[in-house]
Amino acid sequence: MGKLGMILFSGTTDRLMAAGILAQAAAAMDNEVKVFVTFWAVPSFTKGEKKMSFPSDVQSMVPFLAQRMKDLKMASWYDMLKEAKSMGAKIYLCSLASELMNVKKDDVDPIVDDIVGAATFIQETEGWQVLFI
Amino acid sequence: MGKLGMILFSGTTDRLMAAGILAQAAAAMDNEVKVFVTFWAVPSFTKGEKKMSFPSDVQSMVPFLAQRMKDLKMASWYDMLKEAKSMGAKIYLCSLASELMNVKKDDVDPIVDDIVGAATFIQETEGWQVLFI
Amino acid sequence: MGKLGMILFSGTTDRLMAAGILAQAAAAMDNEVKVFVTFWAVPSFTKGEKKMSFPSDVQSMVPFLAQRMKDLKMASWYDMLKEAKSMGAKIYLCSLASELMNVKKDDVDPIVDDIVGAATFIQETEGWQVLFI
Repeated sequence: MGKLGMILFSGTTDRLMAAGILAQAAAAMDNEVKVFVTFWAVPSFTKGEKKMSFPSDVQSMVPFLAQRMKDLKMASWYDMLKEAKSMGAKIYLCSLASELMNVKKDDVDPIVDDIVGAATFIQETEGWQVLFI
Repeated sequence: MGKLGMILFSGTTDRLMAAGILAQAAAAMDNEVKVFVTFWAVPSFTKGEKKMSFPSDVQSMVPFLAQRMKDLKMASWYDMLKEAKSMGAKIYLCSLASELMNVKKDDVDPIVDDIVGAATFIQETEGWQVLFI
Repeated sequence: MGKLGMILFSGTTDRLMAAGILAQAAAAMDNEVKVFVTFWAVPSFTKGEKKMSFPSDVQSMVPFLAQRMKDLKMASWYDMLKEAKSMGAKIYLCSLASELMNVKKDDVDPIVDDIVGAATFIQETEGWQVLFI
């Protein structure tokens, strides 16, 4: 049984999808999973509609990819993270980034388990595999 | 002897180079090395010419860097990965990303050892150092 | 006591800040910390003024963030790395990237402890947590 931590720094849909896929796959294999949402990822973890957003460098590929995702009936990154949570994964919001982005407690999406500092995440994932996404 | 996994998510030449350099250096030091090619990196692992492509934010530095790479006789990322493979490194293509990008088995570059899912890669690299590039 | 390595590949201020925050937090908790500065991060570790630079995709958020950073009296990434160093963190400059960027020894910022190759960093951080930023 492995232990997978992820520092989710990026806010674009492609990288949120990577985090969702890895979280779900790892949790399904009985890994402990903890995601630390920080910086550009913070707005995607506030309440409200989750819009798709891709880096401008890959805009030309987005219509094709969006159609493929539909055809393959791929779950959204949000639903994949919810599925991972149902298997024990935890999602933390970075307290400093929340303050920086001026996100209030009431704005936080219910998918978030807790708001913690980087020090807490580092401590809780000591010796784990940690990805910076 | 260490064990280095890499999730190669980005498709730009700068990050492919980073993966090539790390894979080659780690393999040369008798580390086990496994690279999981996914998302934007997938097109670079299909057959055909490998063109250079850099993020638009750094375009102004590209002519200078391309000249320096020539002057220093730096190997291409592809040749560095081939060298790493000759020392035991394995390169896997993500099955989900291949499907998403509509890459068929026949399109896959021979540098790829196998097409596997994220779950397989997670399992094979349990407890390893894993970088998300 | 954990051991945190970071391969600092990106040169934008947001990611330098992430590295600074993680380095400082980890060092303050008695973790061993080693940062390997490579590719686009190299110019930020040469002598001279450190200018802010953000990815063009997030330019619209920069004025707001810059103001928040001021309001919250956040330390700069440079000062956070200096603080981490005072608690034992080490900062290495990648020899290959320095050569590629044509950075001479005399140009290197005094915050850098040494100029080393990727192989040395891989060896010194064997079995550590390593983030690719």
